[in-house]
Amino acid sequence: MEMEREREVVSLLHGAMVITMDEEQRVFRDGGIAIEGDRIKAIGQSAEILAQFCDVAEHILDLTGHILLPGFINTHVHTSQQLARGIADDVDLMTWLHDRIWPYESNMTQHDSYLSTLLCGIELIHCGVTCFAEAGGQHVSGMARAVSLLGLRACLTQSTMDSGHGLPPSWATRTTDHCIQSQKDNYDKYNNTSEGRIRIWFGIRQIMNSTPRLLIQTRDAAAQLKTGIHMHVAEIPYENQLVRDVHKVDHGTVTYLDKIDFLQSNLLAAHSVWIDNNEISLLSRSGVKVSHCPAAAMRMLGFAPVREMLDAGICVSLGTDGAPSNNRMSIVDEMYLASLINKGREVYANGTTDPTALPAETILRMVTVNGAKSVLWDDELGSLEVGKKADIVVVNPSSWPMVPVHDCISSIVYGMRSENVVSVMCNGSWIMKNKKIINVDEEEVILKAKEASVEVLKRAGITLRSRMNMI
Amino acid sequence: MEMEREREVVSLLHGAMVITMDEEQRVFRDGGIAIEGDRIKAIGQSAEILAQFCDVAEHILDLTGHILLPGFINTHVHTSQQLARGIADDVDLMTWLHDRIWPYESNMTQHDSYLSTLLCGIELIHCGVTCFAEAGGQHVSGMARAVSLLGLRACLTQSTMDSGHGLPPSWATRTTDHCIQSQKDNYDKYNNTSEGRIRIWFGIRQIMNSTPRLLIQTRDAAAQLKTGIHMHVAEIPYENQLVRDVHKVDHGTVTYLDKIDFLQSNLLAAHSVWIDNNEISLLSRSGVKVSHCPAAAMRMLGFAPVREMLDAGICVSLGTDGAPSNNRMSIVDEMYLASLINKGREVYANGTTDPTALPAETILRMVTVNGAKSVLWDDELGSLEVGKKADIVVVNPSSWPMVPVHDCISSIVYGMRSENVVSVMCNGSWIMKNKKIINVDEEEVILKAKEASVEVLKRAGITLRSRMNMI
Repeated sequence: MEMEREREVVSLLHGAMVITMDEEQRVFRDGGIAIEGDRIKAIGQSAEILAQFCDVAEHILDLTGHILLPGFINTHVHTSQQLARGIADDVDLMTWLHDRIWPYESNMTQHDSYLSTLLCGIELIHCGVTCFAEAGGQHVSGMARAVSLLGLRACLTQSTMDSGHGLPPSWATRTTDHCIQSQKDNYDKYNNTSEGRIRIWFGIRQIMNSTPRLLIQTRDAAAQLKTGIHMHVAEIPYENQLVRDVHKVDHGTVTYLDKIDFLQSNLLAAHSVWIDNNEISLLSRSGVKVSHCPAAAMRMLGFAPVREMLDAGICVSLGTDGAPSNNRMSIVDEMYLASLINKGREVYANGTTDPTALPAETILRMVTVNGAKSVLWDDELGSLEVGKKADIVVVNPSSWPMVPVHDCISSIVYGMRSENVVSVMCNGSWIMKNKKIINVDEEEVILKAKEASVEVLKRAGITLRSRMNMI
Repeated sequence: MEMEREREVVSLLHGAMVITMDEEQRVFRDGGIAIEGDRIKAIGQSAEILAQFCDVAEHILDLTGHILLPGFINTHVHTSQQLARGIADDVDLMTWLHDRIWPYESNMTQHDSYLSTLLCGIELIHCGVTCFAEAGGQHVSGMARAVSLLGLRACLTQSTMDSGHGLPPSWATRTTDHCIQSQKDNYDKYNNTSEGRIRIWFGIRQIMNSTPRLLIQTRDAAAQLKTGIHMHVAEIPYENQLVRDVHKVDHGTVTYLDKIDFLQSNLLAAHSVWIDNNEISLLSRSGVKVSHCPAAAMRMLGFAPVREMLDAGICVSLGTDGAPSNNRMSIVDEMYLASLINKGREVYANGTTDPTALPAETILRMVTVNGAKSVLWDDELGSLEVGKKADIVVVNPSSWPMVPVHDCISSIVYGMRSENVVSVMCNGSWIMKNKKIINVDEEEVILKAKEASVEVLKRAGITLRSRMNMI
C-alpha cells in the first residue's frame, strides 16, 4: 500500500541509543531509524527496523555505541554578529551597543552577512544544531544564501527599528512603512525556500526602538502571513523604567505589550529577564514562547525567572544569543549553563541553591520539543517520530569529555561537549559527518570570514585597547 | 660561559604569539622560547631566539599561527571522583554526599583511584592543565602512580576526616593520629618524586568532619614539613551555622579558623562562598589562597564574593572541583564560567549585572600566576619566564570556536574551547601533542575506567533512577 511513496531514497541508522523526545519519553537502548527522503519513515528497535527495511534501504549505517537525538534548536542567535566575536568583551552595556554593535552591524554588507552566517552556521552544526531562530540582522538575503548552502533550517528575521536614541545614520531614516515592507519583501522572496528549510519571520529589535505603530503593524502583518515575530523583551531594568514612563503602565514591556494586544502565541520573546509574576501569567495565558539565553543573561542582563516560567506552563527554549554577547555559540554549552545558572539562581530568589532545579530532562526538552514549539514548527521538528523531518544529531559518548556515562540524559546535558557531536543530519541529509562539514569548505570560510571581519571593523572605526603589553 | 650547563637537550618553539603572564604582562606577537631540560632557558622575539639557539637546539618547532601560554593550573580537583561523573546529578546536597559520594569513595580501591586519576588527567591535559591541586581522595598511592605516568604535575592530598555524621563504616573508625600519620607517610613516600612533579599536601575534608585536634595537628605538621593544606571552607550556610553553635564564634568557619590560628599562607581554601567582609579581611591578612570553583558553586553552593576577595588582595585561583559536582573537568570552561557568573552575580550583590567585572586578563591570571601562588609553586610555575619550568599550552586559535580573534586575551578566556588546545608540555616534555595524549593509551584508559566505574557503583550499592522510558 505504501509502494507509491517509496520512490525516495531510504536510509537506515541502527545500533544506537535513540532518545526520541516523544510524548512517552521513549529511549530505545538499541534503536533504529528509517529515513525516506527528508522524513522519518519508521523508528523502533534496531532489529525490527533492519528486518523491515534492509531490503529497500540504499544506505545502512551501523551506529553502535552512539546516541541519536533530535537536532537541537537554537531559538535566539544573531548569525550576522559572528564576525564581531570579541569586539565588545568586558565593556558596559551602552558602550557595547552604541560604540561597538551598532557601528559594526550598520557597516556590514550583504556579503559580510553571508560570510558571518556561514561561519556561525559551522559553529552551530558542530554543536548539533539543525534549526535556529535568527534574532535579527540586516541582510536576510545574505543569511538565506548561507543557510541554504549549509543545509541548515532557520526562521530568518530582519532586525527592525523605526525610532530610538543613538541609531547609526543609515538606520535612523527608516520609516515604519519601510520596515514593514522590507520584511514583507523578504517573506515573498525567501519564505519556504531551500526545500522548505527557510522560513521568514518578522523582527522587532526591542521596545526602545519601536513606535507603537511598528508594533501593531508587525503584529497584523505576521498574523496575515501566518508567521512568527521575534523580539527582545524585558532585557534590562532601564527598559521597563522607560516603558513605564512613556506608556504609563505599572510594570514594564510585557505589561505594555499585553495592553496593545501584542502578546500572541506566534511571539518568541528573547531573554524576558525582568518580568514579574503578573507578567509571567500574561505570557503564559497568551501562549508566548520565551528564549532563555543563559550566557548572555549572566553576562549582560540578569537572572530570568526560568523555573517560574516553566512552572506557569510557558514554553521556554534555549538560545546562544550573538557572538559579542556570549562568545561561544554552542547550544551544548548553553544546556550546561542553563542547569548551573538556574540552580544557582535560587540563591538570588530564595537564599540557597537548589541542585534539583531544572533537571537534565527538562533542559533536554528545552533544546528539542520546546525549541520546535518556539519556532512554530513542532508539527515537523523537535522529536524523532514517524512523519517528522529527519533532523538528527549523532553523539559519541565514549570519549574523554563524557566517560563514564552512568546517567545518559544528564551526561548529554552536563557532560557532553561539542567534541562529542560527531555527525548531524538536517532534512534527511548529512550536513556534518564524522566532524566534517559537508556543504562548505570550513577552512575557506574561516579564512574569508577573518578577512571580512577586519574590514568591517575598519569601516566601522572600531579599535580595541590592548589588554597586555604587546611587543 | 654557559657551556657546562648545556648538556641537557635544548628545544626551540618559535613563530607563535607568546603570552608570558610575567609581571610586565609581555606578549610577544612573534615569540620564541628556548627550553633546556625541564626549564625555560630564554624567551623573546622569535628571530632573536632562533639566532641565539638554532645551532645548539636538537628540536625546532615552528608554531606559526599558534598561541603559547603558561600551563593552566587547576587548584581544586577531585581526581578520584572521575569514575563517579553523573552519579549525583539533580539531587539535593545530603543525597549527594551521604547516598552517592561517600558510598562511592569509600568503596574505591587503590587501583580504582589510579584509573580515575588517569581518566581525569586525560581530561585535564586536553584542557591545557599542567598542574593541579588534588582536593582530596582516599588513595594517594593510586593518584601518584597516575600523575607520574601521565607526566603531569600535582599537589596530592588525602581526604582527611576524623569525626562527623553519616560517615561510611570504614572511615568512621579513623583516629586523629591515624589521619596525621597516614599523611606523613604519604609525604615520605611521594613528596618530590617523579622528577619533582609530585608534591604532597595535607588535607582537611571540611570543618564538619574535623576535630579541633585534627586541625591543630594538621597545621603544625604542614608547617614542620613546609607544605600546604587543602581544605573545603565555608561551602554552605549550614556549615557556618554549625560552627557558630559548636564553637561559639560570631560568623562561621573562617572566623573560627582564625581563632585557632589555622589561617596561614600555606592554606588553600576551596570555595569560600559563605564569608562576610570581616572574614575576607581575615583571609587577606593571613595570605590564605582561595580556589574559586564557578560550576560547583552555582550548582551546589552559591555565589562566592570573588570580586571582593580580589579587591582585598586575596590570591584567588580557579578549580573545576570533582566530576560529580560539575561534570566537566575543564579549566577552559571554568574560565568562561568565572566571567559569566561573576558578572551576573552583581545582580545578586548590587541589583544589576556588571559586564566589566572580572575582565578576561584577571581570569587568565587566576589560572596561571594565581594558580601557581595557590599551590605555593610560583617560584617555578605560572608564567613563561627564564628559569621557570617549561609548562606550556599550545593553542590553535584559527578553528571555528575562536575565529575571528579581535582581542586575543578575551578570545582565550571566553571563546576558546578544549578543541583549541592542541599540545601541552609539562616539565619540558610533551604530554599531549596534536591532540594525542603521549604517555598513556587514551582508548585503553577509557575502556578500563568504564568497567571499573560500573564495579565501584555495584559495590557501593548505588543505583540511579531512569529519567526517561528506556525500552
